[in-house]
Amino acid sequence: MIDGLRAIVGYDYVLGGANSRFASDASRLRARGERARAVVCPGSPAEVASVVSWCYAHDIPMTPRGGGTGLAGGAVAVNGEVVVSMDRLNQVRSFDPLLWRIHVDAGLSTRTLRRVARENGLVFPPDPGAADQSQIGGNIATNAGGPHAFKYGSTGSWVTGLEVVLPPGDLVNLGGPNRKDVASYDLKKLVIGSEGTLGIVTGAWLRLIPAPESSAVVLAFYPSVETGLHAVHRVLGTGEPVAALEYLDEPTLRITKGSFPGPMPDSPGFLVAAELDGSSAEVARMVPEVRQALDEEGASHVTTLQAQSGISALWRWRDGVSGTVSAHHNGKVSADICVPLDMLAAAINQVSEISARHHLAACTWGHAGDGNIHANFLVDLDDTSMVARSELALADLFAVTRGLGGSITGEHGIGWLKRKYLVSHLEPAVYAAHLAIKYAFDPKNLMNPGKKV
Amino acid sequence: MIDGLRAIVGYDYVLGGANSRFASDASRLRARGERARAVVCPGSPAEVASVVSWCYAHDIPMTPRGGGTGLAGGAVAVNGEVVVSMDRLNQVRSFDPLLWRIHVDAGLSTRTLRRVARENGLVFPPDPGAADQSQIGGNIATNAGGPHAFKYGSTGSWVTGLEVVLPPGDLVNLGGPNRKDVASYDLKKLVIGSEGTLGIVTGAWLRLIPAPESSAVVLAFYPSVETGLHAVHRVLGTGEPVAALEYLDEPTLRITKGSFPGPMPDSPGFLVAAELDGSSAEVARMVPEVRQALDEEGASHVTTLQAQSGISALWRWRDGVSGTVSAHHNGKVSADICVPLDMLAAAINQVSEISARHHLAACTWGHAGDGNIHANFLVDLDDTSMVARSELALADLFAVTRGLGGSITGEHGIGWLKRKYLVSHLEPAVYAAHLAIKYAFDPKNLMNPGKKV
Repeated sequence: MIDGLRAIVGYDYVLGGANSRFASDASRLRARGERARAVVCPGSPAEVASVVSWCYAHDIPMTPRGGGTGLAGGAVAVNGEVVVSMDRLNQVRSFDPLLWRIHVDAGLSTRTLRRVARENGLVFPPDPGAADQSQIGGNIATNAGGPHAFKYGSTGSWVTGLEVVLPPGDLVNLGGPNRKDVASYDLKKLVIGSEGTLGIVTGAWLRLIPAPESSAVVLAFYPSVETGLHAVHRVLGTGEPVAALEYLDEPTLRITKGSFPGPMPDSPGFLVAAELDGSSAEVARMVPEVRQALDEEGASHVTTLQAQSGISALWRWRDGVSGTVSAHHNGKVSADICVPLDMLAAAINQVSEISARHHLAACTWGHAGDGNIHANFLVDLDDTSMVARSELALADLFAVTRGLGGSITGEHGIGWLKRKYLVSHLEPAVYAAHLAIKYAFDPKNLMNPGKKV
Repeated sequence: MIDGLRAIVGYDYVLGGANSRFASDASRLRARGERARAVVCPGSPAEVASVVSWCYAHDIPMTPRGGGTGLAGGAVAVNGEVVVSMDRLNQVRSFDPLLWRIHVDAGLSTRTLRRVARENGLVFPPDPGAADQSQIGGNIATNAGGPHAFKYGSTGSWVTGLEVVLPPGDLVNLGGPNRKDVASYDLKKLVIGSEGTLGIVTGAWLRLIPAPESSAVVLAFYPSVETGLHAVHRVLGTGEPVAALEYLDEPTLRITKGSFPGPMPDSPGFLVAAELDGSSAEVARMVPEVRQALDEEGASHVTTLQAQSGISALWRWRDGVSGTVSAHHNGKVSADICVPLDMLAAAINQVSEISARHHLAACTWGHAGDGNIHANFLVDLDDTSMVARSELALADLFAVTRGLGGSITGEHGIGWLKRKYLVSHLEPAVYAAHLAIKYAFDPKNLMNPGKKV
């Protein structure tokens, strides 16, 4: 097998399956048992197609892999798959700043994409975490979100075209630089978020928009979940086009307080942060509106950040929250449920109740404006009883989420870790359609088998 | 058959197939031969499901129908289908202005939806033509666009959930009020734009945003296509978030000049209109920027419209352009191709060349910012030679569009009228995937057969 793959991509670009760099993702899920069968690093889309073609003909399962920053095990070879890495497809293919568009390889890092756009006065708005390491192809495969999805939508909203290798090895284009296209079914949108189970994204045409001239963050602390969420609703009620609307709860603030870049109350109950962007004049106009909306009902330490350094420091702290919380015990079991906005308070309170019932500590934070909650049960990974209780808590949380009309994942995807929950999450006829699509694209079930379906 | 359907929806709600109200669409395509087998008007989503179930069991093909304003024949029963009308499903199910969302029946008119949102300080941004008559379900089935799609995207960008009847008669929910959901494949996006060939949309959860406080239009005339498109590119170069960026060419302006609500040069070559929206202060800031970008290189009659009455008058005139052009001979054969922005000049010039080659007059106008061109060959429908030449011209145009990397339809869909062009528009493996999806959803090919596929 190794020889067959080396004949396609060259001797140096087929690595042993034990290579630790490709063995796990940000969920710390590791390849099990025989691990990956091999890691292959194609140097062109045509080579990706040849690899898929060869594997498909030889009944060898594949796991496509971007930056490996996923949180659901979607890019981990758990059943002896060949890992197909996009690391070598990392170029900007073409960039037309005056046409607000860019054509990139799937392996380009999110950070580089955003930097290239910024240097030309444009912005690629989606901002999932781990931008240094994550790749645009992985963001597309998971339809990655982020705080600014509230105003700008998730990754898929910015994709006008995909280059994809579909089984049994066809390199095709779904869309392209065209900004509108209603000729065929929207196969591009079907591949977006499909987590490598329908094909492998090798390139993408992306829309960009002019970078806002300025931004500001207004934040405030509240004594409780309820008063904090009232503030969220008041911000929505201003009718201002808020770019991001985030929250963190009391247990999260207690753990991450040490690194918070500013003053925090002694007993912080709930933090709400609203980011505004636009022209300098527009941001200046909106700030007092939003500040007034936040500064009610027990609000304290109301702060406006207008210097880029302050805003960046806040977001750096926010990016580090997950890691700090994780380190508090020595791990966490987490979910990123999404509920209708009017169910947000109920969902946050249910996380507390569920954690108490299972004798666990829990933290939640998330994208309040989108109803998207990162719910985390803190565990000592060496304590098997605790880990078992956290799994029960997670199952309870997903059941509650269904009851609230929510989704079991708003950003991270199903991957491997949540695979057993999808069937009960979807109505039977929808699950049947889901399976029928998987079968139509991948009749041999060789594309990231066991993930998502 | 009539009795079977009457048993489901009631005696009064099964009409004869000859009912003229359901026999054609805005393309003037009429049901042929035996016409529709019947028109059934279900009164609830459950009744739609029962109708689909009954028809599927009895091998009776169906054509779902919204407002009948389509331009591709997608909602016309051309092969003796039962027309399934959404006219009676015309209610707002729930509206949460403070949560920026609304839940509606598929048969709600676009105009009513926009009015209800506006009365509460919100806006549903998609603005396809014929808003009085078109229905949100039809807009979803075609992923309808419009001028403001440049900033806000087409209809599909605003749908978070669909209620759909899938063959053989399952009433299911794809998404809901959740703003983010990456659990399953994005089946919702697959149904959006599928033109009734995968199922029937009966309801939708839509996102809304706060209505911009103000808007303004800056327009200018240019001596040629080239100078006009230079102006379009200068507007993009301002980096302002323009809401709509429209153009009309010389033949269109000549025909529609009489009803233009303002001064026009004696020999208008090309019109560019840019709409700006936002807070009053922001619009006031942007207007001079955009005006300066437009007022170069032979620009004349540069005009800024800031009063709502003036802006509405301009858009009313723009909405009437298609009808005025159509009436100039006594018909037109048209396409709504979409090309990459850098191919816009080539595409517009090709329409002229193709029309000259076939001894036809042609008009084009469209959504310049999106590269979306309404290309119209003017015909006397009683002149069979002329009609035949226009069909050849259309085929030439689609071939040229492919050569430019464009799509054969950016807004109107494939429907019945463009069905023969889809297979050559898509790469073979993509067309195969398209067919596989149709088969997976509708193995008996009873959902709007002959359309789109």
